[in-house]
Amino acid sequence: MLTTHDIAIFLLEIGLLLGLARFLGEIARRYGQPMVVGEIFAGIVLGPTVFGTVAPEFQRTLFPSSDAVIITMDGLTTVAVVLLLLVAGIEINLPSVWRQRKTAFLVSALGMVLPFSIGYAVAWQFSGFFGIEPGGDKVVFALFIGTALSISALPVIAKTLMDMNLLKSDMGMLVMASAALNDIIGWIIFSIIISLLSGVNGHGRHPAVTIVYVAVFVGFMLSVVRWLFNRVLPWLERRTVWPAGVLGFVFACTMFASSVTEWLGVHAVFGAFLVGIAAGDGHYLSERAKDAIEQFTTNIFAPLFFATIGLRIDFAAHFDGMLVLAVFVLASIGKIIGCSIGAYWSDYSPRESFAIGFGMNARGAMEIILGLLALEFGLIGERLFVALVIMAIGTTMISGPAMAWFIREKKPLRLASLLKTTGYLANLTGETREEVIGELAQAAEVETGIEAEHIFKEVWEREKVFGTALGGGIAVPHARMIEITSPIVIVGRTVIGVDFDAIDGVPVNLVFLLLTPKRDQGAQLQILADIARIFSCIDIRPLAFAADNYRTFLDAIRRAPFAMRT
Amino acid sequence: MLTTHDIAIFLLEIGLLLGLARFLGEIARRYGQPMVVGEIFAGIVLGPTVFGTVAPEFQRTLFPSSDAVIITMDGLTTVAVVLLLLVAGIEINLPSVWRQRKTAFLVSALGMVLPFSIGYAVAWQFSGFFGIEPGGDKVVFALFIGTALSISALPVIAKTLMDMNLLKSDMGMLVMASAALNDIIGWIIFSIIISLLSGVNGHGRHPAVTIVYVAVFVGFMLSVVRWLFNRVLPWLERRTVWPAGVLGFVFACTMFASSVTEWLGVHAVFGAFLVGIAAGDGHYLSERAKDAIEQFTTNIFAPLFFATIGLRIDFAAHFDGMLVLAVFVLASIGKIIGCSIGAYWSDYSPRESFAIGFGMNARGAMEIILGLLALEFGLIGERLFVALVIMAIGTTMISGPAMAWFIREKKPLRLASLLKTTGYLANLTGETREEVIGELAQAAEVETGIEAEHIFKEVWEREKVFGTALGGGIAVPHARMIEITSPIVIVGRTVIGVDFDAIDGVPVNLVFLLLTPKRDQGAQLQILADIARIFSCIDIRPLAFAADNYRTFLDAIRRAPFAMRT
Repeated sequence: MLTTHDIAIFLLEIGLLLGLARFLGEIARRYGQPMVVGEIFAGIVLGPTVFGTVAPEFQRTLFPSSDAVIITMDGLTTVAVVLLLLVAGIEINLPSVWRQRKTAFLVSALGMVLPFSIGYAVAWQFSGFFGIEPGGDKVVFALFIGTALSISALPVIAKTLMDMNLLKSDMGMLVMASAALNDIIGWIIFSIIISLLSGVNGHGRHPAVTIVYVAVFVGFMLSVVRWLFNRVLPWLERRTVWPAGVLGFVFACTMFASSVTEWLGVHAVFGAFLVGIAAGDGHYLSERAKDAIEQFTTNIFAPLFFATIGLRIDFAAHFDGMLVLAVFVLASIGKIIGCSIGAYWSDYSPRESFAIGFGMNARGAMEIILGLLALEFGLIGERLFVALVIMAIGTTMISGPAMAWFIREKKPLRLASLLKTTGYLANLTGETREEVIGELAQAAEVETGIEAEHIFKEVWEREKVFGTALGGGIAVPHARMIEITSPIVIVGRTVIGVDFDAIDGVPVNLVFLLLTPKRDQGAQLQILADIARIFSCIDIRPLAFAADNYRTFLDAIRRAPFAMRT
Repeated sequence: MLTTHDIAIFLLEIGLLLGLARFLGEIARRYGQPMVVGEIFAGIVLGPTVFGTVAPEFQRTLFPSSDAVIITMDGLTTVAVVLLLLVAGIEINLPSVWRQRKTAFLVSALGMVLPFSIGYAVAWQFSGFFGIEPGGDKVVFALFIGTALSISALPVIAKTLMDMNLLKSDMGMLVMASAALNDIIGWIIFSIIISLLSGVNGHGRHPAVTIVYVAVFVGFMLSVVRWLFNRVLPWLERRTVWPAGVLGFVFACTMFASSVTEWLGVHAVFGAFLVGIAAGDGHYLSERAKDAIEQFTTNIFAPLFFATIGLRIDFAAHFDGMLVLAVFVLASIGKIIGCSIGAYWSDYSPRESFAIGFGMNARGAMEIILGLLALEFGLIGERLFVALVIMAIGTTMISGPAMAWFIREKKPLRLASLLKTTGYLANLTGETREEVIGELAQAAEVETGIEAEHIFKEVWEREKVFGTALGGGIAVPHARMIEITSPIVIVGRTVIGVDFDAIDGVPVNLVFLLLTPKRDQGAQLQILADIARIFSCIDIRPLAFAADNYRTFLDAIRRAPFAMRT
C-alpha cells in the first residue's frame, strides 16, 4: 500500500506536472504553437534538465522519491498513453479513407516509402552515429529509424487544418485520409518491430508466431469488432446515460484490447489504437461522443503524459546537435518530397502539393510516443530519443505556417461578393439534412441551369464522406463540379434547426450550399475559410440567424472583422 | 517499473471493473435505482465475495496478482476518490446556503444533532457490538459512529431531486442547502477524528496542533483561495482553450490542496473537498465548466472506485444482520425525525416535512467513502464497514420513492390549465436574463395588479440564489408571493435566445414566469414538474419554439405524453 507520505508526494507531483504543462501549453498556443510543445517543456523544466541541475537534492525529493510513487506514476502514464492512442485511432475514418483510396494511397505511399527508405539506408550505413545500442540488431534498428522518419500524426494535422479553417475542404480531407493510412501502416510496422525484439519482451515466442497472432487480432478487430461497435454504439447512445454509457463501454473495450496486445508482446498502445479505429469509424459514434472521449484524454491525460517524458531524460546532457540536424533534415526532406509528388500526381497544383507535403510532415505526439516506446524497449538510446522529440516538435511547428504560405492568396474571395438576393432562402421547410440540401439544390438549379437532382447527388456524396457542419449552427455542404465555371453560393435559413451531426451537437440554422469549378481548388478553400472567419465571431451568429431577409442578412455578415481567427 | 505482465493484468482489471460497473450501474438505473448500487455490486461480483468463492485460484491471478499492480491500483483509486470529493465540493453553493441560512441551518442542525447523539450514545454503550478494534479509543470510535450516522450525500440528493423535477423548486433548494451544510460540518468533524488518530498517521504531532493547522488551512481556502478562484476562473474560461484551461487549473489546484491535507494528516480527500467548495461557488464557475469537471469524474473514476471497494472485502463473510439492522434503523430514525422537525418549524406542511426528511436521509457515495477511509485508518472493522455500505445503499434507495409518496397529489395542477392568451408573449425583445424577466413582470402586473417592479425584485432575488434554466432552451423564473392568491403563469418566447447560465449552455427560447401563493408549496412543485415533464419530450421543443401565437403554442404543449419521465 502507499504510505501517507507517498500519497502526498504523488498528488503534489501530479499537481505540479499538470499545472505547469497546462500553463506552458497555453503559452505555446498563444504564440500559435501546438500545445504539446509547452507540455513537453514543462517536463524538461521539472526534470533533471533544469530543476535537477538547479536544485538536485530538492528535485530528487519530489521526483521520483520512492519506488511506490514511481510505480504508481508508471501505471498512470500507461493509462494515459493507451488513451492517447485510442483518440488517435478514433480520428481515423476508414470509410472516408476508402472513398478517397486512389489519391490517399498515392500521397501516403510516396510519403512513407521515401522517408522510410532514406531512414533505413542511412541508419544501416551509420548505425553507430544514430546510437545503436551495443549488441542491437542492425536490421531491426534500421527498420525502426525508417518507421520513425515516415510516421505521421493525424491528431496534430487535424488540429492544424482546423485552425486554418481547411478541415472541411477537399484538400483537408485528402491530407486527413493520407495521414490516417500513414498512421495505420506505421503502427503495424512498429508492432512487428517490437515483436521481433522477442528477447526483450521475454515471451520466448518466435517472432513469426507473434506476427501471426497480431495479424489475426488486427483482422478480428477491424472486421468482427468493428461490425459489433457499429451496432452496439448507436444503441448505447440512445439507451444509456449520456455520455457515461458510451464512454464506459469504449474505455472498457480499450483496456481489454490493450491488455491483449500487451500480452501478445506488441505493447498495449497498439490494442487501444485498433479499438479507436473500430469505434471511431463512420457515423456510428456521433461527433458529440467522440468529443467527450477526446476531452477526457487530451485535457488531462495528454498534458500529464507529455510532461512526464521530461522527467525521465536529461535533455541537455543527451543533446547531440549533429544527430538532431540529421534526423530533422532526413525526415522532412523524405516526407515533404514524397507527399508533394503524390499530391501533384493527383491533380493538385504545385503550390497546393507543397502545402499538402508540409501538412503531412507534422509528426507531433505520435513520434514522441513511438520514440518513448523504442527507448523503453532498449531499441534506441537517449541521444536518438532527444533528437526524435526535437524533430517531432520542429516539424509540427513549421507545418502550419508553411501550409499557410503556400496557399496564400493576394486577393482572397469573400463570401459577401458572391451572394445574391435570388440565392437567399429565408425559410427552409426541410427538417432533415437531405431535405435541406434538396431545397438548396433546387435554388441552385435556377441559378446554374444544372439539374437539381445532379447537384444534390454530388453534394450528398461529399457530405457522406465527412459532414460539413462547422459548429455553432452553421453548415457548408459543398461540391466541386465540372459543369460550374464560377463559384456559386446559395444560403438557406431554418428557424427550427436541422441536425447536421455537428461536433458541438448544435442544430444548424444557416446552410451555405457551395459549388465550385472542378479544377479551381483555391475558390473552395477561400470561401470556406471566409465563412468560418465570419461565424467564428460569436456576435454575428444571432444577428445572421434572426435576419429574415437578404438585406438584413448581408448587413449582419458584413459586421464581422476581417482579421483571421487565430 | 511495471513488467509487461503487470501492465497486461492492470489494464485487464480496469477493463473488467469499469465494464461490469457501468453495466450493472446501467441496470440499477433501469430499475430506478442510483447507479452507485450497481457499481458496488460489480466489485462484489469480481471480488472475494462471489468470484473468489466460485474460482478462488483464478480470482487471485487477476485480483490483485502482484505488489506492483496493487500499488498502481491504489494510486489510481486515490486519484479517483480525490476527484469524487472535488465534485461533491463543487455541488456546494455557499452563497445559496448563506441566503437560506435560517431554514437550512434549522433543518441541517436538527438533522445532524439527533443522529449524531444517538450514534455517539449507542456506540459508546455498545462499542463491542459495533466492533471497535482492540485497543481502540472509545471516544474517537463513538465520535466516528455519530458522524457516520449524521452525514448526508449532496450529489445523490441533487440527483434524486433532479429526477423528480424538484431541483429548481424552493423545497429542492432548501434540501440542497441543508445537505450542503451537513456535508461541510460532517467532513470537518471527520477530519478532526482522523487527526485525533495521530498514532495511526504517524506524524507524532499533537492532535490539537493538527486541528489548528487544519483550521488555518480551511480558513485560507474558503477566504483567500475562494476569492482568487472567483477572479481567476472567469478569466480562464474566457482566455484559455475550453475546457482544458479550466479543467487543468482546477485539477492541479485539487492535487496541491489534497497533498497538503494528506501531509497534515487529515487525508487527501479533505483538501479536494475544500477546493470544490471554493471553486464551485456562485456563478464564477459556469454550469458548463462544472459539467465538464463532473463528466470526467462521475463517468469513469466513480464506477472504477466503487467497484474496487468490493475487491477489498468479502461482503458475505462480514455480513452481520443485527449490526446492519441497527445501523440502518438508528441512522434513518435520527436523520428523518431531525430533518422533518426542522422543516416543520420552517413552515412546511407535515407531509412536505417528511418528504424533506426522507430526502436528507440518502447517504449515497459519501457514507461509503467515509467508511472506507475509517476502515483504512483502522478505526472500524470489516463488519461495521459492510453495515455502513448497506445502510448507505438502503437509505439512498428509499429516499426517492418516499419523497414521491409524501408529495403526491390526487389531481395535479397542469400548465395548460393555467395559460391565457393575455399571458402569452410571442416576441420578447430583451437580450439578457434581467430584461426578459422584466418584460414578463410587466405582463404579470396587468394580470395581477401587483407592481411589476415588486414582482421583478422577488423573482430576481430567487433567480440569483440558483438559476432556473431547466436545459434544452427552457427557463422557469419563479417566486412565492404573499399578494398572490392563485398560481399565475406568464409565457414569453424569444427567437434569438437568452443566456440563463443553463447547465447545457443552450440559450433559452421559452421563459415561464411562475408566481404562486406564499403558503401554497404544492402548486409551485406541481407546475414546475409539469413544465419539466412537457419539455423533457424532445419533439415538443421545436414545435413550441416555432409557435408564434398562443393557439399553436397550446397545441404544441398538449402533444406531450402524460407519463412522467423516468
